[in-house]
Amino acid sequence: MSVTIALDAMGGDRGLQVTVPAAAAALREHADLRLILVGQQDEISAQLRRLKRDAGDRLTVHHASEVISMDEPPAQALRTKKDSSMRVAINLVKTGEAQACISAGNTGALMATARFVLKTLPGIDRPAIITAWPTMRGHVHVLDLGANVDSTPEQLLQFGIMGSLLVEATESKPAPRVCLLNVGVEDIKGNETVKKASELFRQSSLNYGGYIEGDEIFAGAADVVVCDGFVGNIAMKASEGLARMISHFMKEAFMHNVLTRFAGLMAMPAMRSVRKKVDPRRYNGASLVGLNGIVIKSHGSADVYAFENAIRVAIAAVRSQVPQLIGTRLQSMQVRNANS
Amino acid sequence: MSVTIALDAMGGDRGLQVTVPAAAAALREHADLRLILVGQQDEISAQLRRLKRDAGDRLTVHHASEVISMDEPPAQALRTKKDSSMRVAINLVKTGEAQACISAGNTGALMATARFVLKTLPGIDRPAIITAWPTMRGHVHVLDLGANVDSTPEQLLQFGIMGSLLVEATESKPAPRVCLLNVGVEDIKGNETVKKASELFRQSSLNYGGYIEGDEIFAGAADVVVCDGFVGNIAMKASEGLARMISHFMKEAFMHNVLTRFAGLMAMPAMRSVRKKVDPRRYNGASLVGLNGIVIKSHGSADVYAFENAIRVAIAAVRSQVPQLIGTRLQSMQVRNANS
Repeated sequence: MSVTIALDAMGGDRGLQVTVPAAAAALREHADLRLILVGQQDEISAQLRRLKRDAGDRLTVHHASEVISMDEPPAQALRTKKDSSMRVAINLVKTGEAQACISAGNTGALMATARFVLKTLPGIDRPAIITAWPTMRGHVHVLDLGANVDSTPEQLLQFGIMGSLLVEATESKPAPRVCLLNVGVEDIKGNETVKKASELFRQSSLNYGGYIEGDEIFAGAADVVVCDGFVGNIAMKASEGLARMISHFMKEAFMHNVLTRFAGLMAMPAMRSVRKKVDPRRYNGASLVGLNGIVIKSHGSADVYAFENAIRVAIAAVRSQVPQLIGTRLQSMQVRNANS
Repeated sequence: MSVTIALDAMGGDRGLQVTVPAAAAALREHADLRLILVGQQDEISAQLRRLKRDAGDRLTVHHASEVISMDEPPAQALRTKKDSSMRVAINLVKTGEAQACISAGNTGALMATARFVLKTLPGIDRPAIITAWPTMRGHVHVLDLGANVDSTPEQLLQFGIMGSLLVEATESKPAPRVCLLNVGVEDIKGNETVKKASELFRQSSLNYGGYIEGDEIFAGAADVVVCDGFVGNIAMKASEGLARMISHFMKEAFMHNVLTRFAGLMAMPAMRSVRKKVDPRRYNGASLVGLNGIVIKSHGSADVYAFENAIRVAIAAVRSQVPQLIGTRLQSMQVRNANS
C-alpha cells in the first residue's frame, strides 16, 4: 500500500535546505512512499536542481505562495495566511490528497491551523503533542508536550487514551502501561488535577500503572506517560538542556590536553554508541494526536537526518491508522457509557 | 563566630550510618562548628564508639525517643510524634539552641513540622524549597522544588524575592538575575498563573530577566529560576533520571569488550572531571526558605559526602543570615507599598 505525505517544505529554521534533501533520502528508503513538497514552486525547483533531482512520479511539488515565520503569532497566521505552505499541506490531508503532513514550522501556528482545518475527533477536547523518549529499556511515549496548558482531569484521561492507542497501534504492544506524571507516588501527593485524573484513569479500561515521578520516566517504568503540556514541555526541555550540558562538559574535558585528547579518541566509539542512544534527532517527529488526520511536528532545528525520522514517524502513523483507531475506540467507549 | 547546627541524626535512608560520620567529618573541616546530634541516645553513642569518636566540646547528643519513617503521612507525623528526632531538631532552632537544623528525613513531614514550629515569615504565605543546580557557567538556584503545588502568582513573586535574597546573601552576588520558568519566551506563552506572575515580577524591584525555557536553565542564563513546586520537582527529577540513564549507558558502552574497557580506563580522568561537575551529591542540601529559622533538607539517599555538603549549605545560610534578610526586606517592601 503506497503512502502519500505532504511536507511543509518551507517550515523550520533552515526550510528547504533540510526538507528537500530529507524528502529525497526518504524516497530512496521507502519504495512505496509518495511525497508532496508544499511551498514556493521556484525555490523548491531550484533546490531540487541543486540536488540534481527531478520532481517525478513519487515526488510532486504543490505551490503555496506564503510562509509562516517561526515567531508569528498563531492567531495571526491562521487569520491572514490562507495560502501558507503549512496550511496548504494540512489542507491536502483534509481533502485526502495526502494521508499525513509534516511541518518543522511554528508549533503554535501548526496546532491552531490543524485544529481549525481538520477539527478534533469526537470526544476529544484538545489535541496533544506526543513523542517517544529514550529510556534504559527502550523508549516511552510522553504527552502532552506543550499543546495545552492547564489541562483538566478529563483532558488528561483523553491524552491517556490517545497515547495508549497510538503505542498499541504503532508498536504492536497490547495494553501499554500508562502512568500519570506526579511529584510522588503516594495517593496524597500532587495537585488536585492530577489526583482527580488518577481517579478517572483507575476507572478507565486503560492499563493504568499509577503515578510516576520524573526520574522514573527514563528508567523505562511506563510505556506512556501523561502530563499537562506545561509540565511536559518543561521536563522535555530541561532534559535536553541537561544532555547538552553534559555533552559540552565531555568535549571540554577531552580537549583539556594531549593525553585527554588521545583518551577521547580511544573512547570515541563507546561515546558514539551512547550518543546514538540518546540522540534527540533519532526521536524527532511528534504526533499531534486527537485530530481528524495525521499531523507530524518536526523540531524547528531538525537537520536532514532528524527530518527523515519525522517522515518515518508519519509513515508509521499512516500504516497503523492512528486517528481512525482513536475515533473508533472513543465512540465505542461512549456507546458503552451510554449503555451502562 | 561559632555556628551551632542541630542534625536529625535518624533521618534519611541510612540514618546514623550517614549522619554521624558526616558530622565527624564536618567538625574536622570547620573549626568553629558545633553540632548537636538529635536522636536515640544509645544508638548515637554506639555509632560514635564505632567511629572511635567521643561526644565532646563541639559535638553533643540530644535525646529524642521517636523516629519519623520515610513514608509516614506528614499530618500524622506532626500530630503524633512530638518527640521525633526531626521535630526536636527543629525545636532547637526555635529555642535558639541551634542556628539551623538539617534533616534527610521525610520531606513532607519536615515541611509540615517546620512550618508548624517555626512559622512563616511575615508576608510569606508558604515556604519553598530552593537548591543549586550546575550550569555550563557555574550554577543556578531553582525554587520551588516541591514544597507547594498550585502556587498563585503572588506566591511565585514571594519565591522570587526569597531566591534573589538568598543568592545575593550566600553568593555575594548583587541583583541576581531572576527568571520565570515557562514553555516559551514570548509574552503569549504559558498558563494564566505564569502570565500574571510575570506582570508582578516586572513591577517588582527584582532584576527580572523574563521567561526562561527548560533547556536554558542549564545554559546558565539566570541566577534564580522560579516555578511552581509541581513543575520544579518534575524538572529536577527528570534531569536526575536522564543523568542516571546517560551514566548507565556509558558504563555499558565501556564494559562492552576488552578494547572499550581499555578506552574506559584511559578516559577515566576526563569522565571523572565531568561527573564531578554534575554530581548531585555536590549540590545536596536544599533550603526551606520563608521560615523563621534555617531548615536544610538533605536528599534521603545522601551518602556521607553528600550530607557533609548539606552541612556546608547550612553553615553558609547561618553566616549570611538568610531568614533575617528576607524578613527585613519584606518588611521594607511592605512599608514602601503602604507609603506609595
